[in-house]
Amino acid sequence: MRCEIVAVGTELLLGQIVDTNSSWIGEHLALAGIDCLRHTAVGDNRERMRVAFTEALDRSDAVIVTGGLGPTQDDITREVLAEVLGVEMVRDDDLVVRIQAVFGGRGRPMPASNLRQADVPVGARTIAEMPGTAPGLVCPVGGGGDDSPKVMYAVPGVPWEMKQMLEGTILPDLKRRAGISSVIRSRTLRTWGRSESGLAEDLAAEIERLDAEGGPTIAFLASGMEGLKVRITAKAPSDAEVDDLLAEEEARVRAIVGPIVFGVDDQTMESVVLDLLVEQGLRMATAESMTGGMIGSRLTDMPGSSRAFVGSVVAYDGDVKRSLLGVPDGPVVCEAAVTAMAANVCRVLGADVSV
Amino acid sequence: MRCEIVAVGTELLLGQIVDTNSSWIGEHLALAGIDCLRHTAVGDNRERMRVAFTEALDRSDAVIVTGGLGPTQDDITREVLAEVLGVEMVRDDDLVVRIQAVFGGRGRPMPASNLRQADVPVGARTIAEMPGTAPGLVCPVGGGGDDSPKVMYAVPGVPWEMKQMLEGTILPDLKRRAGISSVIRSRTLRTWGRSESGLAEDLAAEIERLDAEGGPTIAFLASGMEGLKVRITAKAPSDAEVDDLLAEEEARVRAIVGPIVFGVDDQTMESVVLDLLVEQGLRMATAESMTGGMIGSRLTDMPGSSRAFVGSVVAYDGDVKRSLLGVPDGPVVCEAAVTAMAANVCRVLGADVSV
Repeated sequence: MRCEIVAVGTELLLGQIVDTNSSWIGEHLALAGIDCLRHTAVGDNRERMRVAFTEALDRSDAVIVTGGLGPTQDDITREVLAEVLGVEMVRDDDLVVRIQAVFGGRGRPMPASNLRQADVPVGARTIAEMPGTAPGLVCPVGGGGDDSPKVMYAVPGVPWEMKQMLEGTILPDLKRRAGISSVIRSRTLRTWGRSESGLAEDLAAEIERLDAEGGPTIAFLASGMEGLKVRITAKAPSDAEVDDLLAEEEARVRAIVGPIVFGVDDQTMESVVLDLLVEQGLRMATAESMTGGMIGSRLTDMPGSSRAFVGSVVAYDGDVKRSLLGVPDGPVVCEAAVTAMAANVCRVLGADVSV
Repeated sequence: MRCEIVAVGTELLLGQIVDTNSSWIGEHLALAGIDCLRHTAVGDNRERMRVAFTEALDRSDAVIVTGGLGPTQDDITREVLAEVLGVEMVRDDDLVVRIQAVFGGRGRPMPASNLRQADVPVGARTIAEMPGTAPGLVCPVGGGGDDSPKVMYAVPGVPWEMKQMLEGTILPDLKRRAGISSVIRSRTLRTWGRSESGLAEDLAAEIERLDAEGGPTIAFLASGMEGLKVRITAKAPSDAEVDDLLAEEEARVRAIVGPIVFGVDDQTMESVVLDLLVEQGLRMATAESMTGGMIGSRLTDMPGSSRAFVGSVVAYDGDVKRSLLGVPDGPVVCEAAVTAMAANVCRVLGADVSV
């Protein structure tokens, strides 16, 4: 199953927005085990879109088109799809009702132009997920409906609408068409305190074992201030089996580098710290210098941070370190100064722990 | 002059990195007055690269290829270019010297594989800018050297290397080939405190006047927490004339919305505030609550912030507001509380001004 992505929008060519959709789709196709051979971006131009769609369909088994599904005259993906497929457009009455319902739910009158979004190429079916007013489309190519030799999909360029349609309809449909019944899933261990080459050294024997015996794969992703991620990816016939494989491999990796793992998947340093504080009923303050308030800022970006975070003293200036945080005279970047800052910020702000 | 961009790299297709290069190049082509009709991304695969390069060259007058110029066996842009152009590869002795010099300057021995980077298609010339070890290439197509009917460029995928080559060589070469002697330049006024529709209303008459009489154009760019940008773009035969046009239009725009303009181009709220403080010899502190330290963090991200910023008290918890910042009993989100916080943080931290 060879797949391509075509992103539609003059604003992409002009660099007014970066095409993050194609990279997100590319990542999720790879995780689903489907090859993606090309990304293309074209402007909102009928002839150039037609050529790009036709070429992609000639080369590949499946084409995912993003963008150009809005209600304005610029949005012509629907019409160009019909032209490429050699079919007429037809108004879908069910879609009319669904689009009207979206506007009704928002208490806004529907502009007549939005009805254009209910026009679909003959033979296309609409995607069940429709978080906005732009319907997504599944267009079988070459006859045979769900078992057609080729297929084109169209989704809106709005990222959260696109993602729902990909996850809910398109990725499952592609896997079914490709005969992929296995489940591929990843788990990411978040680490801090070891360099990428150091981590690779620590895990070299385990990676070698996996290479030799088969099983999950391990990859490293450097993420700057967020630390180094260790991604374990496993493949199995069912959800339960893939989860077992991931859990088993996570245990092996933790047995080797456990002390530097601070979280899993979407957990961040701040979310882990806050959860620990709340769990132990502690209140925390920060005394910051160079970081200028960043640690407190990241903590308060978390929902519910007020359950454990009381505040910070940012002592950027040496005098503030001495007067408010009781740092002794002498150098302000040394262990004695840090100890004083940490102890005194607890006292000044009435906290139990501090950094 | 029709131009296309082809980005090379399997990591782009897999979504491991987002293709910000193509959007940056697209933006700068547009600013230079050159049409860009398509962006394509392909993997590090000889046959797929060959097809993508050939198609792009058939459709367009100029093709900019990014990526695939590194020293490893995966990096085959040079070889594929030679194949598409129907020429041999030749080792460029000057390049050998330049690449060795880069390694010498870093005090590192040069791996032999780096010499691959000195192999270029016959007839190509290397781009003068070479901030890394990967040379960029200008490949005239169809004979005629600098006046060839078509042209292909190759630049590294590393963004800062790519940008230097675009700005130093490729954009000027494209403008010369396209016979564009005019200069297009933008100036961005940064504003805060007015909605996009409000700003559009304020400037509607001026935009209408420009539309009718010709001259610079005005565009709005919503930038979230960075406010709304008003971009003025002007075109003139020379640098001096375009600067005059921009200055004149900036004065007109400021006459209408001046009070909400806080900076120009790369100036940020924090850079403007720091410059004002330093200029007036004042020292500043912040008393933060909801923002959790973000204001201090943004200020200290600026080089030289210690000349004016002394520190912050982040009073996230109500008790801290009362005990350390003297907020009176009662509601903590009200004018009296804010006044107390601002006044007392100056006293506590020894600052002249505060927010």
